[in-house]
Amino acid sequence: MGLQQLSRYSRNVRVLVTGGAGFIGSNVVDALLARGYNVRAIDNLSTGTTRFLEDASSDTKFELQQLDLLNFESLSASCRQIDLVIHLAANADVRFGWNHPRRDLEQNIVATQNLLEAMRRNGVQKLIFSSTGSVYGDATIIPTPEDAPFPVQTSLYGASKLSAEAMIAAYATAGHLSATVFRFVSILGPRYTHGHVIDFVAQLQQNPLVLKVLGNGQQRKSYLHVSDCVAALMLCMERIAGFKVLNLGHDDYCTVHDSARWIAESLDLRPQMVFGNSVRGWVGDNSFIHLDNSKIRSLGWAPTCSIRDSITDTVAWLMENKWALHRAVLG
Amino acid sequence: MGLQQLSRYSRNVRVLVTGGAGFIGSNVVDALLARGYNVRAIDNLSTGTTRFLEDASSDTKFELQQLDLLNFESLSASCRQIDLVIHLAANADVRFGWNHPRRDLEQNIVATQNLLEAMRRNGVQKLIFSSTGSVYGDATIIPTPEDAPFPVQTSLYGASKLSAEAMIAAYATAGHLSATVFRFVSILGPRYTHGHVIDFVAQLQQNPLVLKVLGNGQQRKSYLHVSDCVAALMLCMERIAGFKVLNLGHDDYCTVHDSARWIAESLDLRPQMVFGNSVRGWVGDNSFIHLDNSKIRSLGWAPTCSIRDSITDTVAWLMENKWALHRAVLG
Repeated sequence: MGLQQLSRYSRNVRVLVTGGAGFIGSNVVDALLARGYNVRAIDNLSTGTTRFLEDASSDTKFELQQLDLLNFESLSASCRQIDLVIHLAANADVRFGWNHPRRDLEQNIVATQNLLEAMRRNGVQKLIFSSTGSVYGDATIIPTPEDAPFPVQTSLYGASKLSAEAMIAAYATAGHLSATVFRFVSILGPRYTHGHVIDFVAQLQQNPLVLKVLGNGQQRKSYLHVSDCVAALMLCMERIAGFKVLNLGHDDYCTVHDSARWIAESLDLRPQMVFGNSVRGWVGDNSFIHLDNSKIRSLGWAPTCSIRDSITDTVAWLMENKWALHRAVLG
Repeated sequence: MGLQQLSRYSRNVRVLVTGGAGFIGSNVVDALLARGYNVRAIDNLSTGTTRFLEDASSDTKFELQQLDLLNFESLSASCRQIDLVIHLAANADVRFGWNHPRRDLEQNIVATQNLLEAMRRNGVQKLIFSSTGSVYGDATIIPTPEDAPFPVQTSLYGASKLSAEAMIAAYATAGHLSATVFRFVSILGPRYTHGHVIDFVAQLQQNPLVLKVLGNGQQRKSYLHVSDCVAALMLCMERIAGFKVLNLGHDDYCTVHDSARWIAESLDLRPQMVFGNSVRGWVGDNSFIHLDNSKIRSLGWAPTCSIRDSITDTVAWLMENKWALHRAVLG
């Protein structure tokens, strides 16, 4: 379907985007509005920001509600007359999970069940959920397919996303809704709010001569540009039926060392790189994340942006939006 | 190790049993005391009962604390000076999950994280957890091994147990504790408090001529006697290291029809059996549960009680303890 055909269909479809003021959420909001959907974004604005919704706000088909998913009654009211939910709100901080061990439980598990109950109460039938490749733990099969062997969780973040997936599956199997669960790799691009690219850029802003890398730099990671991620969601949102899990990553991967080099080059710097000894960047980090994308590829999707270009684009956006860089660093 | 050798070792080991007044919990408590362990049982007495702890209560090495795992501060106090936790407290009601969708979340997920944090706070290093074969959903490999393909959950109960497993794995991987997770089939035997044997016996008490079976009766299930279950826990509790998952079921299975026939025969009745049409007994029921036990068998464990004998023994106990039957039926 071209954009024009889509908008004839989408004119009357009302989509709720949780975490709609966040990095991926606001990109999804813009894509939905461009296709003619009615969009209600909800966000507690803890990491999301209305700055990401400046374009959206001028669209009459858009509304933002500031609320926390832990507030069930407000959430339930937000689900009224909604046709489809794209659930992106989450605590996405993998690395610091042990500093606040209840945050993943509350924001990723309890919040998701609140949403599922709010959808059930309001008869909302369709859900897209953003899970993570971290649910595979230290995967034994790489590239990792969706039906990989039963994994062992290595982080509270991965555990909490697995829990949310599991509850969604139970709701779907019981016939309360249909859902497509995407297991994302790390996403890069405009409005990027946290992760290694910000850490590295911030370090180099402070000291252009030295870049300290967590772990030995040989961790292999697959990154996807947010535009490719959003394209996958847009492709699949009209095909939600039953319960489906789809990996969403790049066919390629790079090392953290590669990434550090590309970030430095984007900034025209040649810092000395200082590596740690560990194969993991931090407790619970997975040293090799690379997903098997054949299932979503069979639906007609493919990544269009190389990992290197995704990184370069993220650096460029951060340099043009230093407020986002400072905000991320100050926490 | 014989019992006598064990008790030399166990003399100074303090074990906390959550759900210690429940069906499996109270059997575990008795087994621990017989082996010379110091035992603290905690239970909110919602389904557990002090009647199951009458023998234990006369032992000076035993103490019962009535508390709910949702009360973090009390739980944390209970974890003081404990060497090992056997975590059995749970909402074990698979069938009626959709009547109270938050119960699994609270009692199986939030309660487990409370326990994990209480253990971390008190430096308790070892955990045994009772998960369930339900986490395999509608298994695609039967008998189902621990590393079966990534499952799709069919019940809130299974989803909540999977979530608890996942959090435990994250705590273990981060080095906060060591844990052995057992995935149980349904357990039968003395002090049985809920499930199909009670349902069938109660029906036949009311009307000995007709037995109504949920589903078509062809559901295949593997049941284990509580004495075999407890033996497995006792065998493994001195070998907890890292993170391990062990199936715990019978090598055999029966149909629900077999089970109904054996229950009727135990009661000397020949009722007309009325079956439903569905391959599932209820929403989210798995029509074939049969676990691959080779991992725990390789540690020297094997079931000693046949499924038929487990069922007969359960019926006999219920008939000798009609208070338990009435209590279960009245809810």
